Amino acid sequence: MTEERMANLLTKLAEQSGDSVFITSKANVYYFTNYYTDPHERLVAVYISKNMDPLLIVPTMEVEDAKNAGWQHDILHYGDHENVWEKFYHHLEKNQGQATSLGLEFNDLTLERYKTLKEIFPKSTLFDMQEGLAQLRVIKSEREFELLQEAAKLADYGVEVGKQAIKDGATELDIIAEIEYALKKKGVQEMSFSTMALTGDKTASPHGTPGLNRVRKGDFVLFDLGVIHEGYCSDITRTFAFDSISDEQKEIYETVLRAEKAAIEAAQLGTAVGEVDQTARQIITDAGFGEYFTHRIGHGLGIEIHEYPSMHQENKLSLQEGMCFTIEPGIYVPGLGGVRIEDMIFMTKEGPKSLTGFPKELQIIQK
Amino acid sequence: MTEERMANLLTKLAEQSGDSVFITSKANVYYFTNYYTDPHERLVAVYISKNMDPLLIVPTMEVEDAKNAGWQHDILHYGDHENVWEKFYHHLEKNQGQATSLGLEFNDLTLERYKTLKEIFPKSTLFDMQEGLAQLRVIKSEREFELLQEAAKLADYGVEVGKQAIKDGATELDIIAEIEYALKKKGVQEMSFSTMALTGDKTASPHGTPGLNRVRKGDFVLFDLGVIHEGYCSDITRTFAFDSISDEQKEIYETVLRAEKAAIEAAQLGTAVGEVDQTARQIITDAGFGEYFTHRIGHGLGIEIHEYPSMHQENKLSLQEGMCFTIEPGIYVPGLGGVRIEDMIFMTKEGPKSLTGFPKELQIIQK
Repeated sequence: MTEERMANLLTKLAEQSGDSVFITSKANVYYFTNYYTDPHERLVAVYISKNMDPLLIVPTMEVEDAKNAGWQHDILHYGDHENVWEKFYHHLEKNQGQATSLGLEFNDLTLERYKTLKEIFPKSTLFDMQEGLAQLRVIKSEREFELLQEAAKLADYGVEVGKQAIKDGATELDIIAEIEYALKKKGVQEMSFSTMALTGDKTASPHGTPGLNRVRKGDFVLFDLGVIHEGYCSDITRTFAFDSISDEQKEIYETVLRAEKAAIEAAQLGTAVGEVDQTARQIITDAGFGEYFTHRIGHGLGIEIHEYPSMHQENKLSLQEGMCFTIEPGIYVPGLGGVRIEDMIFMTKEGPKSLTGFPKELQIIQK
Repeated sequence: MTEERMANLLTKLAEQSGDSVFITSKANVYYFTNYYTDPHERLVAVYISKNMDPLLIVPTMEVEDAKNAGWQHDILHYGDHENVWEKFYHHLEKNQGQATSLGLEFNDLTLERYKTLKEIFPKSTLFDMQEGLAQLRVIKSEREFELLQEAAKLADYGVEVGKQAIKDGATELDIIAEIEYALKKKGVQEMSFSTMALTGDKTASPHGTPGLNRVRKGDFVLFDLGVIHEGYCSDITRTFAFDSISDEQKEIYETVLRAEKAAIEAAQLGTAVGEVDQTARQIITDAGFGEYFTHRIGHGLGIEIHEYPSMHQENKLSLQEGMCFTIEPGIYVPGLGGVRIEDMIFMTKEGPKSLTGFPKELQIIQK
C-alpha cells in the first residue's frame, strides 16, 4: 500500500518537475510509511526521491517500532544528543541522493527546519508540495473508506454512551469520563480530539471547554467527539434537550437540522464545496439566525481530524468520489445556548453517504 | 500576570533590538494572553509591540472564549472564508503598528505563514525570538510552581489507579480506561499526552503504543502519564512487576532506580544539564546496559509537555532556581522488556525537589 502511494507521489512530483520530497508532518509520514508516531519536538521524516531508496528518519529509540509498522526501506536513526541533519547530509552524499527539485510541506515545515534544509540542499530548487500531497490524500481508497466507516461507528457508540450518561446534576466531565471509558473498553486507543460535552450556556461556544458545569432541566447537552481507528479519524456532533425544551430552543434545533439535511442533499458529485456551505447558511439566515452561524459548514477528514478541503462558502473545489468531510451547521446564541448537528459524509458513486448514523431528530431526554 | 509577562517580553525584545513579536504557538499564546485553545489549522496569534496596543487574533467563533479568559486588549477576529492576513495588515496600518524589527518563533512558525508575514512587514527585520521566549518561560513563578505541583499530584493519583487496575489478563487499554475515568471524575479535562500503559515485550519500546496486550505473570507493567491542570502539564513513569520477577528483570529495575536517584541528586543549582544525564548514563553503562538506554535523561516541562531545555548529555546549560524538568532513565531490552522511572523535578533554592511523589522502590503486584 505504501509502495503504491510512494509511486503515485513520484508521478505527482514529476508533474511539478520535482524529483524528491522531504516530508515531516505526522499525517503524511503515516500515509507514506505506515509508521504512526507523535514525535513532539523530535524529527521524524521521510525522504522520497527518484534518486535513491526511500529513507525514514526516526529517533534511535523508535527504530523497532518503525520496523514493526512494516517499513522495509532504509532507516536513519539518531540519539537525542546527535545532529540528525549532519547524519542525513552524509547519507545523501554516500547514496548520491541529492535532489534537483525538492518538494516540501510549506504549511507544516517550520522556518528553522527550512533553513537547515536549504543548507543541506544548496543547489536544489525548494518548492511547495502541500497542494499536491493534499490532492493525493483527498481521494480515499476502499480500505480507507472501511477504516473511516469503522471510526464513524465508534463515534456513534460514543454518542449513545453520552446520551445514557445525561442526568440531572451530572457534570460535563462526568459524562466525558463515561464516554471515553466505554470507548477504551472497545479498544479505542486515542480520541481524534479532546472530547466535548457541553451544557447550558456553554453550548453557545463552538469551541467551548468542558468542565464542571452541571446538566440542568431545560438545557441543551451537546456532544462533539471522535476516535482514531487505525490512524483514521471520526467526528460527530449531536445535541440533546434535557427534560424539556422552550419554543425558541426548538426553533433553533429544527433550523439546524433542516440546514444540515439540506447541505448533505446538496453535496452531490461535481457540486462546489462553497455551494454546500451556502445551502445551509441560506436556511439559517432565512430563519433569522445568520449572525449566529459563525463557522464554515465543515472540513475534510481522514488521517487528520481537519484536513483538505476547508468546506467554506468561497471554496470552488468540486466534490469528487472518494472525498470524506463533515457537514456541521450550528446556531450559537450567547446567553441562550447552541445547537450543532454534524455528520461524516463520504462521496460515493451514488452521491453523499453518511458514515455516522446516530439519529438526529430532536430527542428530549427524560429521566 | 499576563501584563507583567508582556512587559518582560518587551524588555527581552529590546535586548535583541526588537520592538515587536508575532506569536503563533499555542503555548506562547497561552503564556502571554491566558487564552488556551487548540486552533488546529486556523490562525490564533498575538502581536505584541511597543508601537501599539497588544492584539489577539482569533476565529470569530472564539471571541467570547478569549474575552472570558481575561483578555482585555484588542481582538481581531475573522470568519473561515475571510483572509485574516489582509485584516491584520489593515489593522496595523490604521494603528501605525508596523514593526522595525519583528521577533518570530522559528521553531513553530510554518514556512507558509513566514512568507505571508514577510509581505505584511516588507520593511521589517525578521529575527528568531524562540530562544528569548524559552528563556522567559523556563524560570517558573510561584504560581506556576503551584500549578505544576497540583498537576504532579494528579499524575501520582493516576499511577495509583493504574496500579490498582493491574490484574491477570487485563489489557493495556482496560487499565488506561480506569486511569482516565478516575482522573476525569477528579476534574481533569485533558491528559498531557496519550496515556501509556504497556506490558510484556512492549515495555521494551520507549514510545510504545498501548493496545490489547494482556498482563501476564512475570511481566513488567509500565505507566507513563500526566495531566494538564489549568494549562500546566505533569509527567510521571512508574514500572511494576506482576506476580513475580526474574533476577535479570530485578537487576534492570534496581539499576534504573539507582541511576534515577543519582541523577536527581546530581541536579543541583549550577550543575550543567549534561552532567545530570551523564550521571545516570554512567551507572547504567557500568552495569552493562548502556546500549539499552536509548534516549536523553529528560526534558523541560510546563505549558508544554516537552519544552526547553532538552536534558541531553551534551547540553551545557546550568540549572537555575525555578526550572522544571523530568528525570527519566530507562533500560529497554528487546524481547525481555523495559523499565523506566520518571519524576518531575523543580529547582528550588535548596536544590532539586520532586513534585511527583509516588513510591519508586520495586513493587511486585500480587493478586
